[in-house]
Amino acid sequence: MNPEQAYQELLARARELALIGSVNGVLGWDQEVNMPRKGAAWRAEQSAYLAGLAHRKATTPEINDLLSAIEESDLVSDPLSDVAVNAREWRREYDRATKLPTEFVERFSRTASLAQNIWAEARARADFSLYAPKLDELIELTRQKAEYYGYEDKPYDALLDEFEPGEKTENVKRLFAGLREELVPFLQEIVDAPKQPDFGLVEDREYPVERQRILGEMASAALGLDYASARLDVSTHPFSTNFGPGDQRITTRFDPRNFGDSFFSILHETGHALYEQNLPDEFFGLPRGSAVSLGIHESQSRTWENLVGRSQAFWRYFFPLTRQIFPKTLSDVRMEDFHFAVNAVKPGYIRVDADEVTYNLHIMLRFEIEQAIINEGLPVEEIPAAWNALFKAYLGLDVPDDSKGVLQDIHWSFGAMGYFPTYALGNLYAAQFFAQARNDIPDMDVLFAAGNFEPLLNWLRQRVYQHGQRYRAHELVQVVTGKPLSYKPLMSYLRDKYSQLYGIA
Amino acid sequence: MNPEQAYQELLARARELALIGSVNGVLGWDQEVNMPRKGAAWRAEQSAYLAGLAHRKATTPEINDLLSAIEESDLVSDPLSDVAVNAREWRREYDRATKLPTEFVERFSRTASLAQNIWAEARARADFSLYAPKLDELIELTRQKAEYYGYEDKPYDALLDEFEPGEKTENVKRLFAGLREELVPFLQEIVDAPKQPDFGLVEDREYPVERQRILGEMASAALGLDYASARLDVSTHPFSTNFGPGDQRITTRFDPRNFGDSFFSILHETGHALYEQNLPDEFFGLPRGSAVSLGIHESQSRTWENLVGRSQAFWRYFFPLTRQIFPKTLSDVRMEDFHFAVNAVKPGYIRVDADEVTYNLHIMLRFEIEQAIINEGLPVEEIPAAWNALFKAYLGLDVPDDSKGVLQDIHWSFGAMGYFPTYALGNLYAAQFFAQARNDIPDMDVLFAAGNFEPLLNWLRQRVYQHGQRYRAHELVQVVTGKPLSYKPLMSYLRDKYSQLYGIA
Repeated sequence: MNPEQAYQELLARARELALIGSVNGVLGWDQEVNMPRKGAAWRAEQSAYLAGLAHRKATTPEINDLLSAIEESDLVSDPLSDVAVNAREWRREYDRATKLPTEFVERFSRTASLAQNIWAEARARADFSLYAPKLDELIELTRQKAEYYGYEDKPYDALLDEFEPGEKTENVKRLFAGLREELVPFLQEIVDAPKQPDFGLVEDREYPVERQRILGEMASAALGLDYASARLDVSTHPFSTNFGPGDQRITTRFDPRNFGDSFFSILHETGHALYEQNLPDEFFGLPRGSAVSLGIHESQSRTWENLVGRSQAFWRYFFPLTRQIFPKTLSDVRMEDFHFAVNAVKPGYIRVDADEVTYNLHIMLRFEIEQAIINEGLPVEEIPAAWNALFKAYLGLDVPDDSKGVLQDIHWSFGAMGYFPTYALGNLYAAQFFAQARNDIPDMDVLFAAGNFEPLLNWLRQRVYQHGQRYRAHELVQVVTGKPLSYKPLMSYLRDKYSQLYGIA
Repeated sequence: MNPEQAYQELLARARELALIGSVNGVLGWDQEVNMPRKGAAWRAEQSAYLAGLAHRKATTPEINDLLSAIEESDLVSDPLSDVAVNAREWRREYDRATKLPTEFVERFSRTASLAQNIWAEARARADFSLYAPKLDELIELTRQKAEYYGYEDKPYDALLDEFEPGEKTENVKRLFAGLREELVPFLQEIVDAPKQPDFGLVEDREYPVERQRILGEMASAALGLDYASARLDVSTHPFSTNFGPGDQRITTRFDPRNFGDSFFSILHETGHALYEQNLPDEFFGLPRGSAVSLGIHESQSRTWENLVGRSQAFWRYFFPLTRQIFPKTLSDVRMEDFHFAVNAVKPGYIRVDADEVTYNLHIMLRFEIEQAIINEGLPVEEIPAAWNALFKAYLGLDVPDDSKGVLQDIHWSFGAMGYFPTYALGNLYAAQFFAQARNDIPDMDVLFAAGNFEPLLNWLRQRVYQHGQRYRAHELVQVVTGKPLSYKPLMSYLRDKYSQLYGIA
């Protein structure tokens, strides 16, 4: 077969899969944001149908023939060319997808779709037993999935590889162990520091919801989010999704007495959406126009949420605006105290509320639990106790009920195990990229303080976004920073920032 | 082929088509309610892809073979059996669908999807010229569609038949002419009546939007809408759509100084949603579980909006609640005056704001214009002038700009010509059904005044909803009322009600 023709044919098929996948994205978003309760059963059928359709189309043996025609041709002689990048990732997807029977994919999708509503109800009632039978089903399906995919060492590797291609459990363990060794004593220094923030400023004052929404939209627009192709909505658990070129959706949730919960969720999801909005549109739906991995994706959300959004320079610019939006609430508050308050380090129950210092401990806990479930067969009814015991060990707290513990996250309910570690990897990538950006843009703090975030956005466009999947995550970090991924830039950033804030010598 | 097997196979295929169609419903709703502007191009591709997929699946010749196997069997010996009803309507759909080439369907869907955004912008700017080129394209495609479908007399018959199966242009002309002959002099009597309502009560006082939303949801829930399977949202043009069993969506728009605009839109769309919510779920996606026609659908929206929602009995119950929700606005208002105000007869520009008496004149105008476009080739640039001239003749008003004239309705922008007459047919059906319901439920006004609408809903469930498409519209009206469709029940209802309100002898 003519390789050029084969490539054109694969492009057309990729476009069809992108259409189906993006439609399923609309269904998933609507399910979280809008859907009335009784719509769940039919929505599950709709999603499962599209997932099955996509899977059949992605696994037809013709794709193998078309790919082979390219792989044996000159079209891929430059491994960084658009064709070669697409072919490489299509091959990966095809090989993975053909390992799962269509019937299995449909069953998985249907179960996960139903599980999400059950999870939401169980969480609202703080009753794990409502959720346990469905979760057990999903775990069994997830173990089956790992077996279908295959693995060298432990089944968990097969799951991790789905979200962070090429990443290994052992490498993550090594990075996490190094970080924990330095982080835990540093956290103790922070907790013991005599200077402490007044976090009541941001967690226990009146922040009317409609004003929070306006300020959140202002901030995300200031960072560069284009609202002609984006929307902010409300859901139980904040998330972002991409419906296609020109249509990114982010969500948050509002608490009328808590400023940070919604504000930093919005900045977080804005980071995800900025990555999607700035991928090359001409390659939409192709590997060459797609995000590298969940870890790299998370690095962008954490960059804009934390490295930018919790910086002193950002608040120099944004605090006067914030005080104008909440004049009654903040008239007596100084910028320095507000900035300290939004950076309060405080071991707490909820991952998405966690500060930068404790956040990774939440992830390490999930990483351990997931390995226990998948590799060691931890029974579903023992998960809450295992969770609570590890939580006590890592964060020193007794979990009061499961809505603040094992039920807090949506991920397992859509069948995503192996996903959590990518959050902490994201923090590592973010810090390493950002150290490089600081090096390349020396006056970054001055720019931020003037409300100018475009130089950083442009730097990310050029260094990260424009490449799509040209590089795998571990290659990208090498290309951008000249070094392999390390926990040291994150640790160094945390040490500098929080030593100064808390007056630690 | 075994007829029973053929039927099972057709049921599976119908389910697949229902899945695809209902997913496209989600996309269409999101487009109107949520989608950011720049998402339009990709959304058009998504919708066109699903429309094309459905069309290919609906027109494969195997369906013809499967249908033939049933049609020649005992399964359809009772023409009112579930199987026979499904087979009859599947045959109609198949025969119609196979007349349109897939490529044409995709082109139509893509053009219509793009046209909707252009229409919305043209309407916002009151600039028909922005919309004209795309409308011209759609008209040309619509003419082509009529040619593909074929017709005996005029091309317009082919379009009308799409929305109101079996209905003929000539019959509609006859009904409309009869109605107009009595309505026009009666309208003059109303306009000349010395007793006139103070419509400023509902059109020029403060009705805070959030309270309007609450009251609208209360009213629709009181009428029987189940919000565990429904949602109310905001869109440029109110509409309702059914995502599947347990998920009906209605929309409205709010004007903070106009009570009636949103309130009666909500009741109108509630009527549509009540019909969908009360169709037999077990037949979802099958003719046996689907609405009869757009005319019958509209009869339900108009029943709940007007025959119930603008009745004195309804306001006896609902006015005290309304005054509690708007205590500042309505403290000085009597129920009788409020009821008169929501029934103000006042020739105006906007169809969806029109009162019960003038509404049908708006439809007659569109019916004439559409016939001129389709049957007589009225050029697109002459449409606004033709519209405005007829508007002057029927309603006595000069249209100030096209946003209040030809640009006001979304229908043409999604390629729906032949749709408008079903609105007036809906009014006729509604009045004829309601006269029968009054006969069967003699104390209806007492029930309404006590907030009890369930007997009417149950009557409609038994007489109309439960049948799905068992009967065609003209048969259904005969079955339910013992008579063919006539304009007389509507005219008689209008004469009684408005003579009393306006003090006409």
